[in-house]
Amino acid sequence: MVKHVLRASLVSSLSVAFMAGCTVTKSVNNAQQVAPTNTPKNIIMVVADGMGPAYTTAYRNYVDNAATPEIESVVFDDILLGNASTYPAKVSGYVTDSAAAATALAAGVKSYNGAIGVDVDKKPVNSVMHYAKTKGMRTGLAVTSQIVHATPASYIAHNESRKNYNEIADDFFDIRVNGEPVADVMLGGGTVYFKREDRSLLSQFVNEGYEYVDSYEGLSSIPAGSDVIGLFAPVALPAVLDDNRKDRLAYLTKHAIKHLENDKGYFLLVEASQIDWAGHANDVGSAMAEMHDLAQTMEYLREYVDTHPDTLVVLTADHSTGGLAIGAGGDYRWSPEYLHNMSASARTIAATMVDEDMPGEYAAKQLGLSLTSEELAMLDSVSNQDEETRYAAVKTFLDIKTNTGWTTTGHTGVDVEVFAFGAGATSFSGQIDNTDIAKTIFTLLDSSALNK
Amino acid sequence: MVKHVLRASLVSSLSVAFMAGCTVTKSVNNAQQVAPTNTPKNIIMVVADGMGPAYTTAYRNYVDNAATPEIESVVFDDILLGNASTYPAKVSGYVTDSAAAATALAAGVKSYNGAIGVDVDKKPVNSVMHYAKTKGMRTGLAVTSQIVHATPASYIAHNESRKNYNEIADDFFDIRVNGEPVADVMLGGGTVYFKREDRSLLSQFVNEGYEYVDSYEGLSSIPAGSDVIGLFAPVALPAVLDDNRKDRLAYLTKHAIKHLENDKGYFLLVEASQIDWAGHANDVGSAMAEMHDLAQTMEYLREYVDTHPDTLVVLTADHSTGGLAIGAGGDYRWSPEYLHNMSASARTIAATMVDEDMPGEYAAKQLGLSLTSEELAMLDSVSNQDEETRYAAVKTFLDIKTNTGWTTTGHTGVDVEVFAFGAGATSFSGQIDNTDIAKTIFTLLDSSALNK
Repeated sequence: MVKHVLRASLVSSLSVAFMAGCTVTKSVNNAQQVAPTNTPKNIIMVVADGMGPAYTTAYRNYVDNAATPEIESVVFDDILLGNASTYPAKVSGYVTDSAAAATALAAGVKSYNGAIGVDVDKKPVNSVMHYAKTKGMRTGLAVTSQIVHATPASYIAHNESRKNYNEIADDFFDIRVNGEPVADVMLGGGTVYFKREDRSLLSQFVNEGYEYVDSYEGLSSIPAGSDVIGLFAPVALPAVLDDNRKDRLAYLTKHAIKHLENDKGYFLLVEASQIDWAGHANDVGSAMAEMHDLAQTMEYLREYVDTHPDTLVVLTADHSTGGLAIGAGGDYRWSPEYLHNMSASARTIAATMVDEDMPGEYAAKQLGLSLTSEELAMLDSVSNQDEETRYAAVKTFLDIKTNTGWTTTGHTGVDVEVFAFGAGATSFSGQIDNTDIAKTIFTLLDSSALNK
Repeated sequence: MVKHVLRASLVSSLSVAFMAGCTVTKSVNNAQQVAPTNTPKNIIMVVADGMGPAYTTAYRNYVDNAATPEIESVVFDDILLGNASTYPAKVSGYVTDSAAAATALAAGVKSYNGAIGVDVDKKPVNSVMHYAKTKGMRTGLAVTSQIVHATPASYIAHNESRKNYNEIADDFFDIRVNGEPVADVMLGGGTVYFKREDRSLLSQFVNEGYEYVDSYEGLSSIPAGSDVIGLFAPVALPAVLDDNRKDRLAYLTKHAIKHLENDKGYFLLVEASQIDWAGHANDVGSAMAEMHDLAQTMEYLREYVDTHPDTLVVLTADHSTGGLAIGAGGDYRWSPEYLHNMSASARTIAATMVDEDMPGEYAAKQLGLSLTSEELAMLDSVSNQDEETRYAAVKTFLDIKTNTGWTTTGHTGVDVEVFAFGAGATSFSGQIDNTDIAKTIFTLLDSSALNK
């Protein structure tokens, strides 16, 4: 897309200021006045892994108040600016994986599916997080996957394969910018990759002055402005439906910001990692719950930017997962109300129902639904099957109740939405490519440095 | 959505001018200078029936030049402004049909599924086309369905049910604005509704001075500025893959404009009606061909607005059809190249293969594909089945080759994209509701009248 390349290369601090100036009438004719407002001091990049366009519409319906004639707006509605194409380097066709998409979002380079911070020739490409660090900004990440998973990994590591988790974890300590690890704050899951028999990266981080915590409670007692590695699970965090914090991503994001704020600004990557996993599993209950976790985070960030207008927040997805559709089987219906009272994830319900005397009744209670005797009997009938079969049965049950459709256990190639607010946000309007997001952030980081 | 209602009600000629002014720097401080540029004289509303977000991405991939490393931009990429929600009145749930969506787009009113230009109480609601006519503008429509189908019908008629085609056709003549039928130019299909045993509406239109044509060729010989009813098929036009004009919608649009242009401006509704029908049929070959028909129309309109900058073009969909997904079955692949050489629609291939001695070879030739002996044998094996089974087999064959997914033969509830260019286009940016499109057009029509 020639126009996108041109567009990115033409973005200067002046043009960025001008583009943003559309909403600031009094400053339109004075670029010097506009620049401080529209060049961000802090940049927060939020990746909603797997969140194709159907997810945001579905979420609006999911939280709709059925008692009112209108469907209430959600946080995403106030901040939508356009769409981004997500295709990987042509060697991988038209459907990206999370690694190639994250490399595009992080470094502005199209690569092959599986690539972590390397181009099609497997040469390292540096990310906006690396660049922010070279500019003297503080840097961090807050995610709900293991922190070495594809999206956060691509902002820090360089590896030919996303599967090399241990090598990627090594990069988190070994790759240095200005003599320090790339990220000052790392919050998510993944203890097993950082406390290994062959190497204890945790000890190395602690020896270098990082605070280490392994509980949400512990995180809150660390003094502001610390370097932190917080790993709250051996691998990924629990699904939010199964977590003891129902606002886990907002909580991690708040704490990351607490430790990142400083005079020179910061770059923070936030990932709602498990929307994608719900999509891969075709699990509509977890899909909506993980969307709610993200929505709460975005609501917090809206409040934050209200009081910190020098901060830019960009939200997009890396791709769409599952081919989620709000409607299936010829029926003009979608009924998200059946997902409102789940007290555990479908996977956990499927895993635990086998131990119950009345598995159907138990599942119904966990799902928060009053079921017919036929429905209870159906759930009873699968309770002696293996766990994956039980999980499939619970998911299918919810798909039928809600009339949800899926086309794949993988990704689809549909463009994803782009949302932004705060300083410099309008640079992300209209139809762009995922690489444009990194390219524009690189330019904003340059502009920001010029203003210091 | 309270903000949307507020937003529409706050749009004034000044604010419209201001919003558009973001791209016209020299005029920002002079509202009187801006107004003529950003208040449209002519408004062209294009509805791409059924075109959910996956369709535009799929189309970009479909026309991609595989020999280049980039994926080339398509016309939609240059004009994207945001998304619109499409839900009907709550009595019909979260998934709209074409009638409720068209009533929303035409009149700015949410109604029940099936409603043609009436509200939930079945009371008539007037459309932007009616309103344009009251302002002394010329009015018209150019569609590829029968002209009494849900979308065009909702701009003209009032009926409790979209299925009452004859009553709707009667409204096309009987409903009067300033003593004239609502539309001065009507191009599409549907002779059977206008030349009936009980009433010949065609004769009545001709008696009132309308030119009647029934062929594409005949259309080109009518003097510019005429009132025209052009019906080119008994019901709908053929699928574009089966039509003798591969640019049928662009051709009809050009001719509609030729007859509508006048000093007081015009309102034109264009509908790419059959994207939806391809979606209902889960027919990816026709889906991409109908998208190409639309894309050619939009390219023509881009050129038109370049020379007629006083014209606004808005494009959106009424809903998404079929749950189309660019990827299925866990495979990270979409292969639209298998659709590039079709010389007839899958339905026509299925209909005609039964008469052939070697049905598999015949189908392969029509599909423009070199098939393996196994694939030919599969197609041969269905040739003795009924036509729907043969059609299903050809479509499934293309789905497997391309790795296309579908979730429904009906609609889905995902938000649709909104595109606009020309005078006043930026009024349609960000996340809006389908009713906002009509509300903004009403306001622009008022502003336009003020400038005359």
